[in-house]
Amino acid sequence: MNTREALTTPAPPAVTDLHASLTDPALTAMTFLNEVAERHPGALSLAAGAPYEGFYDVEDVHRALRVFTDHLRDERGYDAARVRRTLLQYGRTKGIIHDLIARHLAVDEGIDVDPEAVVVTTGCQEALVLTLRALRRDERDVLLAVDPVYVGVTGAARLLDMPVRPVAGGARGIDLADLRRAAREARTAGLRPRACYLVPDFANPSGLRLPLADRRALLEVAEEEGLLLLEDNPYGLFPLGEERLPTLKALDTRQQVVYLGSLAKTVFPGVRIGFAVADQPVPDSAGPLILADLLARAKSMFTVNTSPVAQAVAGGHLLEHDCSLLRATERVRAVYRENLRRLLRRLAVHFPAPSPVTWNSPQGGFFVVVGVPFDVTGDLLERSARDHRVLWTPLDHFHAGPPAPRALRLSASSLPPRRIDEAVDRFAGFVRAHTPAGP
Amino acid sequence: MNTREALTTPAPPAVTDLHASLTDPALTAMTFLNEVAERHPGALSLAAGAPYEGFYDVEDVHRALRVFTDHLRDERGYDAARVRRTLLQYGRTKGIIHDLIARHLAVDEGIDVDPEAVVVTTGCQEALVLTLRALRRDERDVLLAVDPVYVGVTGAARLLDMPVRPVAGGARGIDLADLRRAAREARTAGLRPRACYLVPDFANPSGLRLPLADRRALLEVAEEEGLLLLEDNPYGLFPLGEERLPTLKALDTRQQVVYLGSLAKTVFPGVRIGFAVADQPVPDSAGPLILADLLARAKSMFTVNTSPVAQAVAGGHLLEHDCSLLRATERVRAVYRENLRRLLRRLAVHFPAPSPVTWNSPQGGFFVVVGVPFDVTGDLLERSARDHRVLWTPLDHFHAGPPAPRALRLSASSLPPRRIDEAVDRFAGFVRAHTPAGP
Repeated sequence: MNTREALTTPAPPAVTDLHASLTDPALTAMTFLNEVAERHPGALSLAAGAPYEGFYDVEDVHRALRVFTDHLRDERGYDAARVRRTLLQYGRTKGIIHDLIARHLAVDEGIDVDPEAVVVTTGCQEALVLTLRALRRDERDVLLAVDPVYVGVTGAARLLDMPVRPVAGGARGIDLADLRRAAREARTAGLRPRACYLVPDFANPSGLRLPLADRRALLEVAEEEGLLLLEDNPYGLFPLGEERLPTLKALDTRQQVVYLGSLAKTVFPGVRIGFAVADQPVPDSAGPLILADLLARAKSMFTVNTSPVAQAVAGGHLLEHDCSLLRATERVRAVYRENLRRLLRRLAVHFPAPSPVTWNSPQGGFFVVVGVPFDVTGDLLERSARDHRVLWTPLDHFHAGPPAPRALRLSASSLPPRRIDEAVDRFAGFVRAHTPAGP
Repeated sequence: MNTREALTTPAPPAVTDLHASLTDPALTAMTFLNEVAERHPGALSLAAGAPYEGFYDVEDVHRALRVFTDHLRDERGYDAARVRRTLLQYGRTKGIIHDLIARHLAVDEGIDVDPEAVVVTTGCQEALVLTLRALRRDERDVLLAVDPVYVGVTGAARLLDMPVRPVAGGARGIDLADLRRAAREARTAGLRPRACYLVPDFANPSGLRLPLADRRALLEVAEEEGLLLLEDNPYGLFPLGEERLPTLKALDTRQQVVYLGSLAKTVFPGVRIGFAVADQPVPDSAGPLILADLLARAKSMFTVNTSPVAQAVAGGHLLEHDCSLLRATERVRAVYRENLRRLLRRLAVHFPAPSPVTWNSPQGGFFVVVGVPFDVTGDLLERSARDHRVLWTPLDHFHAGPPAPRALRLSASSLPPRRIDEAVDRFAGFVRAHTPAGP
């Protein structure tokens, strides 16, 4: 019977019988980048967006765990059995360090939020996935995202079959006219633009920071267009200078912003602790709810709860610094500043203006976008790693919109400061070797 | 403009503008159960399927972490920087204790599997979600599941918009004729049945264990019907007697079984470590792949990687017992046996045959299904908690198929042995108070 054959997929299945996200080019591109790095362990990495690990110490894990255990006993008044249960058993879906995260947001970001609006997640990626899951009701729902966009966002959206429509970033971080256009075009196509994703502070990969006036204007546009804003803020504590700008969430008086937080760069990635702040009231007949409660319901079916052991380590780390991650990151922030300054200075030494090689000058964060006078390919990255012993990231991996083959991303986060000049020297050698001779 | 209005959802959104899974009755039912338990802290719980915590000790976490750190240094030969990086940085998507889990499977289950086929996940729930994500290519793909089915399975499937079609469990764990019927009916309806989910050992909630002959026959039927089997095995180490049966995966010579593992009951829930074993070769033009590689791609977009700190604690625990969880659980297995025996014995004391109250006699695990001569409702649970100070779980929460209003689940896992008789006494009091007078 023909129908039966068509509906019987073989077990084991072919790749074409599986969900399309699993063979998405963005995913295979990321795998390729990692493989190049593994094949060339001697190459210096201006590719990795991983945090600087020079101050890491396994003993910090033990100490943080003890600090949190003491906190449960001394400040929350838990007896020994309850301390054990809190760390080792199943637990609250929204997490056990929500109060400490809320305190951090108040202390470091001027964000005042009820701890009940915080959902502690298995890294920021899960916070994003839960938010998209809630917002994608059916096939008409789409996400807007400032382009170029972090590959984790397009990946999460594809896993949930939610299309991503690009919004131009322009020179200031988001082009508000283009945001309006994107929202309206989506609606004209019969779609529902639900939210716009962006990193207002030192975006990945663009490095851009939204000026204060643009933040306020963005909140206005979002309200007019009926959009939530998904504000992802992994780099906000790392400006080059002293000035930090208020987050969108700090300016948000009408609950238009879902704030996505990560402790990967401020505690360490191995805790895999992130969070969502979702204080939006959600009308429901059964009683007062906020969006965080609904994200928690989705979480209970994705990962049940976030490891309380990992939360305890992050919580202890927060407690050790009075819940100020600005204070906790004093040493590493100095490294990031030094690294970004050196990288920009050294690029200027190698490519004095006028040059066919150009770059932007971010005011903080990890990333610099470099324009080069040749097409950037995977093959070129392999040759850069092999012949020049330096790694970087093609910008094309980040594009939801039109391709950008002549640009790449440099990251200044993971190398020690003393290796930055050398890495940029190698990078300059690579660029020169592939730059066509001038006219 | 009418169209524009319809496509502009308000921000903040109404509950009806969010994904339907978030207001699924199964989810709200679970919330209700938790709330009843919180309202009545003095009630003894025959509801909680959580593991017995009498042997928990926070110092075990520290010790396990040190054991794993030593293992990285002494057995894998990592230098101090690499040890730090392994525990604290981002890491391998498929995990860092895959080899230890593979060794556990060989030692305890007779399952021989390449460690590369193991994906370490944030609890078993994530392993299930990743597997369903891979298998649901489009709206035609459906999951079969032995009914009654664990609510986490229906929840995960609903999050991914994958319908669950019930297969009768019968008296032996799965009705194979009904499995064939379900697969064929799905195909007749134009759907693709991709896999059948079951817990062959002491299922939640039925407590049933598949006889060996049925396991072999199930593998045959699955092959004929083109179905993968999703074998979830959280309770297999806890038989009442000495005899354990081979898992489906141990009998699986043709890679028909994806094995879903949990360390929640054998290490502790707070590590949130589970895993999938997916050794299915997946034909792909780009080279040899196994299903585990594709689950890892999905994982990279859900949670990036599983906390290496949590993995280290689980890994240290495995190492301390030569990767035998049978050995690691010696003390707690004695508790589970004692509890289940006492619970069955005490039910027989209260309800000697013939009685309108009936129950099954599982050969192990945590759960017993009790039939009662009245409809079980949420309201009755509240009264049981308040007036009789005992908690249990309505069986209706677990049904993918027709309702079963006159049954409930008792769990013998979380109370200390000395409280079981008392809990059953209270439960018997509740049942008697609601049993209609005989004719």
